[in-house]
Amino acid sequence: MFENKERTSIAELGEFGLIKHLTDNFKIKHESSVKGIGDDAAVFDFKDKQVLLSTDLLLEGIHFDLSYVPLVHLGYKAVQVNLSDIYAMNGMATQITVSIGVSSKFPLEAVEEIYKGIELACNKFNIDLVGGDTSSSKQGLVISITSIGYAAKEDVTYRNGAQEGDLLCVSGDLGGAYVGLQILEREKQIFLENPQIQPDLEGKDYIIERQLKPEGRRDIVDLLAQLKVKPTSMIDVSDGLASEILHIATQSNVGVRIYEDKLPIDPQTYETARELGLDPTVCALNGGEDYELLFTIKQSDYDKIKNDVDISIIGHITDKNSGCVMVSKSDVLHELKAQGWNAFRK
Amino acid sequence: MFENKERTSIAELGEFGLIKHLTDNFKIKHESSVKGIGDDAAVFDFKDKQVLLSTDLLLEGIHFDLSYVPLVHLGYKAVQVNLSDIYAMNGMATQITVSIGVSSKFPLEAVEEIYKGIELACNKFNIDLVGGDTSSSKQGLVISITSIGYAAKEDVTYRNGAQEGDLLCVSGDLGGAYVGLQILEREKQIFLENPQIQPDLEGKDYIIERQLKPEGRRDIVDLLAQLKVKPTSMIDVSDGLASEILHIATQSNVGVRIYEDKLPIDPQTYETARELGLDPTVCALNGGEDYELLFTIKQSDYDKIKNDVDISIIGHITDKNSGCVMVSKSDVLHELKAQGWNAFRK
Repeated sequence: MFENKERTSIAELGEFGLIKHLTDNFKIKHESSVKGIGDDAAVFDFKDKQVLLSTDLLLEGIHFDLSYVPLVHLGYKAVQVNLSDIYAMNGMATQITVSIGVSSKFPLEAVEEIYKGIELACNKFNIDLVGGDTSSSKQGLVISITSIGYAAKEDVTYRNGAQEGDLLCVSGDLGGAYVGLQILEREKQIFLENPQIQPDLEGKDYIIERQLKPEGRRDIVDLLAQLKVKPTSMIDVSDGLASEILHIATQSNVGVRIYEDKLPIDPQTYETARELGLDPTVCALNGGEDYELLFTIKQSDYDKIKNDVDISIIGHITDKNSGCVMVSKSDVLHELKAQGWNAFRK
Repeated sequence: MFENKERTSIAELGEFGLIKHLTDNFKIKHESSVKGIGDDAAVFDFKDKQVLLSTDLLLEGIHFDLSYVPLVHLGYKAVQVNLSDIYAMNGMATQITVSIGVSSKFPLEAVEEIYKGIELACNKFNIDLVGGDTSSSKQGLVISITSIGYAAKEDVTYRNGAQEGDLLCVSGDLGGAYVGLQILEREKQIFLENPQIQPDLEGKDYIIERQLKPEGRRDIVDLLAQLKVKPTSMIDVSDGLASEILHIATQSNVGVRIYEDKLPIDPQTYETARELGLDPTVCALNGGEDYELLFTIKQSDYDKIKNDVDISIIGHITDKNSGCVMVSKSDVLHELKAQGWNAFRK
């Protein structure tokens, strides 16, 4: 990726020099960031707010494939994925720490690309970078991100608050990131077989972007606050809708009923899934990496959100004994399963 | 390491099953831990206290060598190293998150060993495990730890508060972890050349323990509070005394003068260094991994700490122009350097 560009050895800068070089552009924006990089620990002052913290460890070859993920996107996505967990608590994300392990074959410019993506995400989502480090790695690229945020005690939304009769809502649309990944994987195989062929991504821009550049739904947290809707439970869709529904159901001790025809699926996701011989519903249910927010609201809040085009009501909460089911378009009940739901594949 | 023991494949448990299995024994001890493992983010309530956060990424082959580090020690040390940063802010550490990436050749029992060490550290230092995950890794063992703590605003101690005339103090003794590492490295080489030879660690128990099982100096933070001594600056000794002194000097915009004959070096460290042809003073200055606390206090606090055998006064803060120097036993001035100080080696 860097063959024709300038290459600077990371060793030339040393550890302290490197972290200073990479983070010099980052500005501290929040009053709650009392101390960022440069001491033994970061220091925060959230006054009377509760503090939210989430952490992700991303490993090359497991969580990302450098053969089709540009480094700047990788940095951006790594931050987004982590912020998404703070938003899923109905909180505001305010700080992150980033630790990166890179093999010595990585030039400085490659690490700079990752930090460029991190910086883009920090600027767009108003996040302070307050800590972390870089080290060499014998084992490819390793990224560890911790994000910190806050919420008033009464606003924090857990997975366990869903009540029978609540409406189940999801933001945005589902399955796009998964179908986008299938396209990237297909083009990678074609490239490996014949490096002369350029990847054909025409008309796939939306789903490729869903995979490479997801956006945490901070706007939904803002919107709910504005509409004065406190969700009764919330989770972000990282492993797939079905898996997240089961988390809410288990932790809230309830059942869930969703309707296949209510699932928000973008036309590009739908068409591409068909083209690849995949069931769009399966992609939406089990695809994962959508980073949308799945949440429940009281029925009395229905009027407040019913006109928002970015929120779909896909079902409702039932009693525990009814289990977690989807009513198909042909009016057949299917039990929701986290992964094994593939049996439903037509 | 696990050839003769039971081996269970991690894949049998699945990701959620694995984390539940590994963390089931951990009890939540702090009121500030509002929500631990099991939601999108951990939730804390530190009331009016400031929040401290530090994060470490530990990579196999870079930060640890599995050929001589038992996994239970690795888990224990990984936690300690991270807690040490919270203590270095004069704070109390209360929570950690742990994310681990393991290659598929690791059996469940190996990961259990690491968690056993983590649990020991959590119990001994009164820490809640509140998050993190496990994933497979193509890159050997990867451990990411984030620790969280708190302190009253007026108690938080930075690196930048040292004033001319302050006394420079260090807890415990120095160089032991480094000399212990040299012994482990030596025995590893002997073993590689002749696997029949058992490691000879007799009489090296203290320095081996300093390397494999360091302890964060929570007791020093407690002691200082008890003595009503607020350090003017503080840092933990991870990269070596000289390096840490330079951090305090740079950030406080002062000079430092230390005295070689005041450096606390354990007799076992001293003797073993000599045996290996190393200068004990160099080991103390540049060895690293001691995880002792280096701090400055006002002269007026001298009487409060002078009788504590676990705190050594090794020098004092001077004006910036005097630089950072050590007065040798033969009364010669040597400039302190972070790494390049090796020129001093006799």
